[in-house]
Amino acid sequence: LLSVLALFSYILFREINNLGKKKQVSWVNKSLMKNKPKIADIYTKEDISKIIDKEKKVAYCRCWKSQSFPFCDGSHTFHNTVTGDNVGPLVLRE
Amino acid sequence: LLSVLALFSYILFREINNLGKKKQVSWVNKSLMKNKPKIADIYTKEDISKIIDKEKKVAYCRCWKSQSFPFCDGSHTFHNTVTGDNVGPLVLRE
Ligand code: FES
Ligand code: FES
Repeated sequence: LLSVLALFSYILFREINNLGKKKQVSWVNKSLMKNKPKIADIYTKEDISKIIDKEKKVAYCRCWKSQSFPFCDGSHTFHNTVTGDNVGPLVLRE
Repeated sequence: LLSVLALFSYILFREINNLGKKKQVSWVNKSLMKNKPKIADIYTKEDISKIIDKEKKVAYCRCWKSQSFPFCDGSHTFHNTVTGDNVGPLVLRE
């Protein structure tokens, strides 16, 4: 009887513990600027034109792991390797 | 004893079942083109110029929930509301 009780307590505790985590597990952005209600980035045609003229190409992060967000810093490669995901940047070029 | 055995089987089954899901839980892209090893989208300055001239602005999805990927179709709003996430598109405009 004791072991059954112990098991039940364990399962119950774990389920309660998981409730709070369920939401974060479904987050696409796990860590960047979580104090902001929504992260959108807006550029004009001119901004884009300037940056492409200067850099030849520019990659924008869609994996939300970049340390230089909104730019891609290549972190998607590590993320894809570790998790088996298949995300990559949006690239604008000459 | 039987109930203990039943509980153990239940837990064991659930853990085994969860093993495969652990990785998918950390995916940023849960559903789009999962047969592709990596999803990158590349546009030229001319492509961007044309689309902005035509549409005034264009939003690119970074939440991986859009039915019109790589374009944003507004699905990030539902995703953010349901999960408490804070993701949004990359917008290019005039
Ligand atoms: S670092 Fe995020 S897409 Fe490259
Ligand atoms: S639908 Fe994905 S960012 Fe808007």
